[in-house]
Amino acid sequence: MTGEQMHREMLEQPQVLAALADRRAELAGRIIDQLPEHLAGIVLIARGSSDHAAIYGRYVLEFAAGRPVALAAPSLHTLYGADVDYSGYLAVAVSQSGRTPEIATVLEAVRRAGATGVAITNEASSPLADAADAVIDLQAGDEQAVPATKTFTSQVAAFALLAEALGDVPWQDKDWEALPDAVQSILDDEAPAASVAEAIGKAPGLIVVGRGLCYGIALEVALKLKETCGLHAQGYSAADLRHGPIAVVEGDFPVLALRASGPTANDVDDLTADLRRRGGQVFVAGSGRDGDLPVSDQLAESLVTMPLAVRGQQVARALALWRGLDPDSPQGLSKVTVTR
Amino acid sequence: MTGEQMHREMLEQPQVLAALADRRAELAGRIIDQLPEHLAGIVLIARGSSDHAAIYGRYVLEFAAGRPVALAAPSLHTLYGADVDYSGYLAVAVSQSGRTPEIATVLEAVRRAGATGVAITNEASSPLADAADAVIDLQAGDEQAVPATKTFTSQVAAFALLAEALGDVPWQDKDWEALPDAVQSILDDEAPAASVAEAIGKAPGLIVVGRGLCYGIALEVALKLKETCGLHAQGYSAADLRHGPIAVVEGDFPVLALRASGPTANDVDDLTADLRRRGGQVFVAGSGRDGDLPVSDQLAESLVTMPLAVRGQQVARALALWRGLDPDSPQGLSKVTVTR
Repeated sequence: MTGEQMHREMLEQPQVLAALADRRAELAGRIIDQLPEHLAGIVLIARGSSDHAAIYGRYVLEFAAGRPVALAAPSLHTLYGADVDYSGYLAVAVSQSGRTPEIATVLEAVRRAGATGVAITNEASSPLADAADAVIDLQAGDEQAVPATKTFTSQVAAFALLAEALGDVPWQDKDWEALPDAVQSILDDEAPAASVAEAIGKAPGLIVVGRGLCYGIALEVALKLKETCGLHAQGYSAADLRHGPIAVVEGDFPVLALRASGPTANDVDDLTADLRRRGGQVFVAGSGRDGDLPVSDQLAESLVTMPLAVRGQQVARALALWRGLDPDSPQGLSKVTVTR
Repeated sequence: MTGEQMHREMLEQPQVLAALADRRAELAGRIIDQLPEHLAGIVLIARGSSDHAAIYGRYVLEFAAGRPVALAAPSLHTLYGADVDYSGYLAVAVSQSGRTPEIATVLEAVRRAGATGVAITNEASSPLADAADAVIDLQAGDEQAVPATKTFTSQVAAFALLAEALGDVPWQDKDWEALPDAVQSILDDEAPAASVAEAIGKAPGLIVVGRGLCYGIALEVALKLKETCGLHAQGYSAADLRHGPIAVVEGDFPVLALRASGPTANDVDDLTADLRRRGGQVFVAGSGRDGDLPVSDQLAESLVTMPLAVRGQQVARALALWRGLDPDSPQGLSKVTVTR
């Protein structure tokens, strides 16, 4: 049977997230001890799926810390040799394996330039962990499938607990307690993803859209579809889509919209209506009456991002199986990517 | 004849860029007077084409200022009501029309939170200009085509001159002097873009790739192709493409690679070779022997971004004409986009 490895790792997510939730006070403590006295800002360093988790982190960290958050431009440090003063900055580098050389190199460079460095990784013994002042080790267990699943949702959880270390957050303990069951109930309900996959069928392209906290999740779901199916899928923020890219949506073009209850829901609903008027075939993942891929309405928006990511994993896997592909073996990809 | 308006505005670029180059000491002066004493960081606020210019700006400003640069997450301010301290920050908001409400709203919010605000706009009398401490007015003349051309290259030039106001930069006066002719010689040479357009033909999707300073240009070229042709084109950094999305490149999938002489050239060359081994149909814009879309080798990498953007505009227009579309009238787009 195909897709065994990715599927097995997807199924581990409730227990991995529950374990991280249990450790969050201890993990937050490691960070609080290291924070700069006057925080000038925060910089996040990542690529690929880890970068999508960082884009989620960009929102929750700026909200909690009350200081601006930037995503690093790695080539400034690895290729251009820029001389930048990072004093007063907290740098957070994210890599599942901890072995992507570019990420460790950039963390080392910004630490030399004055930043305090935190690593979020699944490998507590890795070059990235060695380069950091403090480590959030995900303890998600070995990940073998090329498409990251359990480590992605763990990274999202790690950014949420890091936000708790930095200030006030718009969620409560009860949301953490409800999270594993919300993910489990999705994993027990595979039929909606199979239906959506069948409707997408042989489409050559697809757009995944989210807003705010769901924007990074939309990018990640699009990447899962690229990795498992070779499908030219692209993630957008709802606002960015309106600034031009919406021109590609016509004549049955498929769109997957991620909808979380909260301040962004109206925007996503308006966009969904616009896209349907243009002829787009829109599938909605999230809360709300007409959701094609339902998600619990009981979690705060910041944490419902994880169940939404799992819905996206399900669609990617189901579409690969529908197309007769092995989601564990994407075309020409390897687990650790070497970039400079 | 179709494409008149976009084409006319494309042809104005040499004179618009020459005029900006002439004014750059005066424009830089407006900024230097306003800079925070201890710069904590820089934040850029933009959407659409302006956001792609800002992604270019992200590199040259961090390099010149020697402090980290962030791209704002507008929804934190417009939807989530985040309470963030922007004291010590320089905020740069970019909008061609100065009338995208979201951009002015975010600039006002970060100024209230302590930032110094600069506007880059083509409309010196606009809500965005009114919300700023200093204005870089592009004076590019009225832009009527929906696909931005002359205002995009002007915004790139504005970020370069802003970098000169903030510190040392890796280019010289002679590069500014050579820029208008470098753009003119491309505008006088339409045949290569017509050949590339014919080779792309009816492809349903396309990838544009760049690295570092050319990354924002790659995003912009992809947007031009979406706007003028409804083509599902996507821009990537060469490094990001390797972290998963490369899976979509197989069997004649077209890729447009932007190659500038400098520290990123080897990376782009290696990627081009990899993509060709996968079966991708790769067209190279830039310097180097096998360029399909040649660009002057006489400009510093930071400024050759503008001629590269013009090559991309030419391909977008040529492909629209080849497909029998009117590049001035994209499907369902308007010149000022209202987002919240």
